[in-house]
Amino acid sequence: MRNLVVLSKLVLATLLAMSLVACGGSEKTEATAKADKKIEVINWKMVTTWPKNFPGLGTGAEALAKNITKMSGGRLNVKVYAAGELVPPLEVFDAVSRGTAEMGHGASYYWKGKMPAAQFFTTVPFGLTAQELNSWIYYGGGLALWEELYAPFNLVPMLAGNPGVQMGGWFNKEINSLDDFKGLKMRMPGLGGEVLKKVGATPVNLPGSEIFTALQTGAIDATEWVGPYNDLAFGLYKAAKYYYYPGWHEPGSGIEAIFNKDAFNALPEDLQAIVRAAAQQANQDMLNEFTARNNAALITLVNDHNVILKKFPKDLLAALKKASEETLIEVAAQDPKSQKVYDSFRAFLDSVSEWHEVSERAYINARVGG
Amino acid sequence: MRNLVVLSKLVLATLLAMSLVACGGSEKTEATAKADKKIEVINWKMVTTWPKNFPGLGTGAEALAKNITKMSGGRLNVKVYAAGELVPPLEVFDAVSRGTAEMGHGASYYWKGKMPAAQFFTTVPFGLTAQELNSWIYYGGGLALWEELYAPFNLVPMLAGNPGVQMGGWFNKEINSLDDFKGLKMRMPGLGGEVLKKVGATPVNLPGSEIFTALQTGAIDATEWVGPYNDLAFGLYKAAKYYYYPGWHEPGSGIEAIFNKDAFNALPEDLQAIVRAAAQQANQDMLNEFTARNNAALITLVNDHNVILKKFPKDLLAALKKASEETLIEVAAQDPKSQKVYDSFRAFLDSVSEWHEVSERAYINARVGG
Repeated sequence: MRNLVVLSKLVLATLLAMSLVACGGSEKTEATAKADKKIEVINWKMVTTWPKNFPGLGTGAEALAKNITKMSGGRLNVKVYAAGELVPPLEVFDAVSRGTAEMGHGASYYWKGKMPAAQFFTTVPFGLTAQELNSWIYYGGGLALWEELYAPFNLVPMLAGNPGVQMGGWFNKEINSLDDFKGLKMRMPGLGGEVLKKVGATPVNLPGSEIFTALQTGAIDATEWVGPYNDLAFGLYKAAKYYYYPGWHEPGSGIEAIFNKDAFNALPEDLQAIVRAAAQQANQDMLNEFTARNNAALITLVNDHNVILKKFPKDLLAALKKASEETLIEVAAQDPKSQKVYDSFRAFLDSVSEWHEVSERAYINARVGG
Repeated sequence: MRNLVVLSKLVLATLLAMSLVACGGSEKTEATAKADKKIEVINWKMVTTWPKNFPGLGTGAEALAKNITKMSGGRLNVKVYAAGELVPPLEVFDAVSRGTAEMGHGASYYWKGKMPAAQFFTTVPFGLTAQELNSWIYYGGGLALWEELYAPFNLVPMLAGNPGVQMGGWFNKEINSLDDFKGLKMRMPGLGGEVLKKVGATPVNLPGSEIFTALQTGAIDATEWVGPYNDLAFGLYKAAKYYYYPGWHEPGSGIEAIFNKDAFNALPEDLQAIVRAAAQQANQDMLNEFTARNNAALITLVNDHNVILKKFPKDLLAALKKASEETLIEVAAQDPKSQKVYDSFRAFLDSVSEWHEVSERAYINARVGG
């Protein structure tokens, strides 16, 4: 039945094309192409770890899907499912792995239970900024290691977004020294949470949806989230009044797009290239958006919602940095893959930090007269 | 004659498709599509301001062309011409404007003679870093202003690369204070050159090909170029021994791709989207490459070529910053378009600098214990 429909469309298109050609028109090929496109359409599902239309992250996933569809002229249609619509947020990895969806959008550190090494591809405390992470992935050997790590799960990973340097978090008391972190119950997932433990705080792992109530009821004393643009939308200022910087624990979180390997490999070369370019476009686009919108959101938080902006004291940052370095070495020692990824990450971090001493850091300090 | 060939290809393809459909195969549409693609090919020329295969910049233009061709499945083929191959480097703008080539690759500040406002879209002394420039262009209103500025020339501009924060330049004497800049003959184009004048130096404008000899013979005392990765390839260490940072004059130079408006508008929507995504991919890719490769190049310069790495003194940087601010206000006052662009640029710079006080700057200083 389906083949018959296809056949009739092709015949129709060809007859139309032939008649146009007979008239010497150039629309001929367009007509045929359109008919072909109708037949060639590939429909993909993208499952995400984000709530529907979540600013920056969820909307970034939507934009990525739309761009793939647009660039492919409708040959590859991607439909986005928010967290829970098709699968729960933390089942995105498995769903794409087994092909329930062809594509996923989330962050690699969510899968640390499967492989600790995955955490390095999102973000690392006192690690790489967004620009540095992009550079490690695409020119520092990072992508090959990431692909190798995901290959046994039948997955192809790509970077697809970055919110930039995060804020240090929301607190209900002032943090004046390392002592104020002792016993503090703070929501912080991933490597940052491990670091908190080392300095005497109690990391709590909560999904985004539960943070607000936990903070308001005092079940937790503090939480990190993303940055002003997201945090304002999330309403966290209603539950805490001190807003700290810098976000030492997530200096540039790489958002990932993952693809079922069979589905990706089945695409023709042009669609594979389109998917890769769309992911890179999304990657840059999210950072552009957060960079442009964070300051206005921060001003709103401070001026309209009476949030008090504070910087972490130096001794605390120094202790967190020391604890971070110990944590990374411990994570690396857990298995050979983690060690391999850490070694590459570490070498790149050292080199790019050295470079930024004479470029980014020297420049942005000079810009403010520092 | 041509129509007949088209016709026979179409008929052949359709017959093939029909026979495959009859067998229930899915290869049918691919065969038709291939035949169509052969007919629909669009050939574009890209003229550039760079020497052939010039590291980072010229190779970035080549990669952009290849990506467009690949993503379009060969429907849009772009052939790259290095500076002088089709038109001289500084005629790229006019050549694309009149349609001699459909596409160009260079930097907007080369066209300041036509419109001073163009300079803001490349880079500004003490202005935006690469990340900040991307953010202004795509989320701060920059792109609309740039498009408005180029529209009378029948051109569509896009960002297509960025080498990041440049180095401060090559010198044959130490720079210990502002006094050492007095009377200094330094190669520096664009706004940076205007700033040099204000602090008593003599800016010299030389094309890249003449810099080396001028520096070696003493015709100039100093020069800026790009950064270690480029400067090493350029051999500048053979003509000067002091290498200064930070590059206050070019903190993140936006490389531009320009398109003949008629040629761009004639593309179907999917190819327009492909071109836009390819430009954004190229934009990120160049920054990734320079960020990853600059440090190794700098180490080679210092260790193998005995280059002495130095930081500009604070009083000099402060004087240059003051002179830069005066220069920008003067440029803006030249015409209403420049004023409009400057106002947008300035507001964005102030806002994003404020944000980076609590994000990028706070973080990268904390990372080194500062």
